[in-house]
Amino acid sequence: MPQPDHVSALGIPDPADLDDDLKAVWAKCVEKLGFVPGVYGAYSLRPQRLRNFMAMYNEIMLAPSGLSKLEREMVAVVVSSANRCYYCLVAHGAAVRKLSGDPELGEMMAFNYRVAKLDARQRAMLDYAWKLTTALHLVDEADRDALRGAGLSNEDIFDLSETVAFFNLSNRMAAATDMMPNKEYHRLER
Amino acid sequence: MPQPDHVSALGIPDPADLDDDLKAVWAKCVEKLGFVPGVYGAYSLRPQRLRNFMAMYNEIMLAPSGLSKLEREMVAVVVSSANRCYYCLVAHGAAVRKLSGDPELGEMMAFNYRVAKLDARQRAMLDYAWKLTTALHLVDEADRDALRGAGLSNEDIFDLSETVAFFNLSNRMAAATDMMPNKEYHRLER
Amino acid sequence: MPQPDHVSALGIPDPADLDDDLKAVWAKCVEKLGFVPGVYGAYSLRPQRLRNFMAMYNEIMLAPSGLSKLEREMVAVVVSSANRCYYCLVAHGAAVRKLSGDPELGEMMAFNYRVAKLDARQRAMLDYAWKLTTALHLVDEADRDALRGAGLSNEDIFDLSETVAFFNLSNRMAAATDMMPNKEYHRLER
Amino acid sequence: MPQPDHVSALGIPDPADLDDDLKAVWAKCVEKLGFVPGVYGAYSLRPQRLRNFMAMYNEIMLAPSGLSKLEREMVAVVVSSANRCYYCLVAHGAAVRKLSGDPELGEMMAFNYRVAKLDARQRAMLDYAWKLTTALHLVDEADRDALRGAGLSNEDIFDLSETVAFFNLSNRMAAATDMMPNKEYHRLER
Amino acid sequence: MPQPDHVSALGIPDPADLDDDLKAVWAKCVEKLGFVPGVYGAYSLRPQRLRNFMAMYNEIMLAPSGLSKLEREMVAVVVSSANRCYYCLVAHGAAVRKLSGDPELGEMMAFNYRVAKLDARQRAMLDYAWKLTTALHLVDEADRDALRGAGLSNEDIFDLSETVAFFNLSNRMAAATDMMPNKEYHRLER
Amino acid sequence: MPQPDHVSALGIPDPADLDDDLKAVWAKCVEKLGFVPGVYGAYSLRPQRLRNFMAMYNEIMLAPSGLSKLEREMVAVVVSSANRCYYCLVAHGAAVRKLSGDPELGEMMAFNYRVAKLDARQRAMLDYAWKLTTALHLVDEADRDALRGAGLSNEDIFDLSETVAFFNLSNRMAAATDMMPNKEYHRLER
Repeated sequence: MPQPDHVSALGIPDPADLDDDLKAVWAKCVEKLGFVPGVYGAYSLRPQRLRNFMAMYNEIMLAPSGLSKLEREMVAVVVSSANRCYYCLVAHGAAVRKLSGDPELGEMMAFNYRVAKLDARQRAMLDYAWKLTTALHLVDEADRDALRGAGLSNEDIFDLSETVAFFNLSNRMAAATDMMPNKEYHRLER
Repeated sequence: MPQPDHVSALGIPDPADLDDDLKAVWAKCVEKLGFVPGVYGAYSLRPQRLRNFMAMYNEIMLAPSGLSKLEREMVAVVVSSANRCYYCLVAHGAAVRKLSGDPELGEMMAFNYRVAKLDARQRAMLDYAWKLTTALHLVDEADRDALRGAGLSNEDIFDLSETVAFFNLSNRMAAATDMMPNKEYHRLER
Repeated sequence: MPQPDHVSALGIPDPADLDDDLKAVWAKCVEKLGFVPGVYGAYSLRPQRLRNFMAMYNEIMLAPSGLSKLEREMVAVVVSSANRCYYCLVAHGAAVRKLSGDPELGEMMAFNYRVAKLDARQRAMLDYAWKLTTALHLVDEADRDALRGAGLSNEDIFDLSETVAFFNLSNRMAAATDMMPNKEYHRLER
Repeated sequence: MPQPDHVSALGIPDPADLDDDLKAVWAKCVEKLGFVPGVYGAYSLRPQRLRNFMAMYNEIMLAPSGLSKLEREMVAVVVSSANRCYYCLVAHGAAVRKLSGDPELGEMMAFNYRVAKLDARQRAMLDYAWKLTTALHLVDEADRDALRGAGLSNEDIFDLSETVAFFNLSNRMAAATDMMPNKEYHRLER
Repeated sequence: MPQPDHVSALGIPDPADLDDDLKAVWAKCVEKLGFVPGVYGAYSLRPQRLRNFMAMYNEIMLAPSGLSKLEREMVAVVVSSANRCYYCLVAHGAAVRKLSGDPELGEMMAFNYRVAKLDARQRAMLDYAWKLTTALHLVDEADRDALRGAGLSNEDIFDLSETVAFFNLSNRMAAATDMMPNKEYHRLER
Repeated sequence: MPQPDHVSALGIPDPADLDDDLKAVWAKCVEKLGFVPGVYGAYSLRPQRLRNFMAMYNEIMLAPSGLSKLEREMVAVVVSSANRCYYCLVAHGAAVRKLSGDPELGEMMAFNYRVAKLDARQRAMLDYAWKLTTALHLVDEADRDALRGAGLSNEDIFDLSETVAFFNLSNRMAAATDMMPNKEYHRLER
């Protein structure tokens, strides 16, 4: 059967009706990626909320941090795997493939990160991401100490935690809107 | 034993060293509330991230929306109850007590919202908040239709969902930093 | 909306029709507390069962034991937190506040006891209470040894276990009858 | 390997040192059953608590009630099955076999009650017992109405609920003490 | 009420219509056991699938292996206990009683294997069986090393794992067909 | 880091030492697929068990049945998704892509089948596969009736159930051996 062609089950406004700053974002996405990510489309139902989401996203995923961009994308995919979020697994799985140049690593993060051969630092980060996602009430000083033991500073732990927290937000927005990923992601970097 | 007196297990900078815009936020909090909420202190370890967090928080909890401010606080507490987040249960439980003038309602939201007598709209919102928090991979069109049947528009469902999603973020930041609520919250509006 | 004003969803007899020994209990409660606890009202539907319940309750919570009364109330609240029992969290949360003189400790026990600063003995007791409540089939000699290592005798372990077991009984009676706590508890010792 | 021969991992006093009323209970058990049930032995570490336990047990399992004695034992086994309690499955499984004259029914209750052919009333009672045991925070008026629809009065629902609640207590005492059932139960009524 | 007398809820063909090789199996079962196991009856709806099932079953349970036949049956029962599979608990519980000559051991395996006194090798095998059944995505090299530390070779681990895996298959076939065990099993070796 | 290059954590024999019938299987695989699937390699540690596994696999996945080959592969992937089995998600995800010509469908099955637009028959099959995998003790006649209502015969339900059951076996063998999929699968049919 033909698969869902909506971007969001809650509907989205006509891009032609967006404010100029958002039209500029749309244009820049098309220029750089060839398409506007579905999450932007879905969020454009509430333009100011989209602006806040983009600001937070860009800071967490792109700004300077003790975590590499690949590490942040690995965390994004592992959180989305725990939550079984289709949109984010497709979109950020592609990002792991691109940043690592290793298509198998992308699938390992999405299916079960525990099968991957990782160094101690990355394994500690992903174990923490899983626990903070699935049982946050059990996180305690021992978990922070495990990350410190793997070389993370307090600032690094903050950034890691906010990455985990942010994808727990965006996974839920994707589920709430039945957000559909752009088809371009599927074939990227295979 | 004396209880934890830290604001964040990851440490926080001296408020005297914050940028001027944040100092102004600090001053405004003291003026209006009598204290700076712990979440701002904890987040000030990474100032730009704090700015993004505040922008998102203010839009979700305070901007015009089809959901009343009390409804948003009820959602905040129910999400935090599902996640067993100490900081948010204390701080937002106080907000439910204040906005509703009903201390028992605050405790019902925190302990088990199902015992409260609620109208169909509020009950549908809280059932959805619980499901989107604990089993997002099962949320589907039937859940959205239940909300529509209770009178929510697509924009209302978006706002409700983002409130749920946001507290799934902030609950995790609280757990990650062992964030301690200001003592003032405990006695508020009893 | 006005909150539930029943004591039990299964109905209760007119207190004027109770046997004399129970009338005396009612009178003594009013004298000491100012009200008759809802659990007695709910249980009075079956008077002999109420007598047995009171006998067991009084022995477990009030009789001499290696556990202090505060420790027993802390265990009661942590069990009720694991089970999300509204009645017992309200009533015994108040007792923790009263016996400890520490309102925050009461809320920590109710929301997530792991955030509290506790000595090793109390932490061991509460970890055991959580496990015996949520996964009793996994309790084994290692758990008993952990308690012994924290200074508990076999008799203390028995008393602790029966406290846990008893609130697993009473939490279920509260859920079964939609038992509503007396409003007086909410404001107590804040 | 030889299986555990203790009655309780917390130790028990010498029966010769028990108070006279308990010695009389011991003697009566031997006369009627041929042995003293392990649960009495384990509980004799704390004699007054044993007295309370026996009073409650006798009222719940043996006193007049809208539930038959077989129904009460079926509930006991289903609760113990949900909790995976070895002692109670052995001892009360034997009771179901004896009261029903149907050894297969005893095993169905212990292994998975859903495979049994039951009338609507018994099935409703066991579904309720399972839910009140495993997810008490979700029990609500719809559950009570289902029982009423199957013919139970409010008093019957009370008695059913207290049976469920009581075995949630005794399952935990068995786990806490590694309580070992008397060997006689195993062969009974096969 | 009379208990289910079907062998499979999906129906079974008349044994008189089976192919000759299967008729021979039926005859051999009657000769050796006095009856045809229900699982063969249920599977005979799809004869070639039955042949494959029997070949796999015989190799796993009866062929030479580093695991004794009793150990394989203990594993079968513990897997079936985790899955709450009525048919397999009845049929293989009987096998444990028969091979061990210890009826209590059979019930311990079925109800909660952790109460049994086992040597380190058997305990390690059963802990592994439980984990591979209930949380296979968490099984890793540490689990294999624990088995090696208890004396199992790689071939032994393979055989153990396939026994666990096979009963995860057959438990599901029993649930899918509401497979009813032969009454003869219940009284066997008590 | 370089990813695992083993086929099985339990080791495998040199293919040159295999019996002639297995050598012929190896040769045929290379001829048809270009490689020997890792599962055959891992299973070759125990040759007779491999033969039984192949016989069962071929019957379930390739023999005539009321379920199409694509439907069987969709079931395989959904079971493997519930169990988070890396090997089977990679290998059978590729099969769904190939048989459907729809790469997105393969990812939907692997990540969260509920987002796919499916006809009622396929949706019923996958809901059943999920339940039989994750909560087999709750499967009952209502589940079989739902499948019948979607047009499945008793034979179809048998075949569907055995497909679910079989991947519950093979997922566990993959976890037990840390089975690594052939790299060729990753790029197939993107």
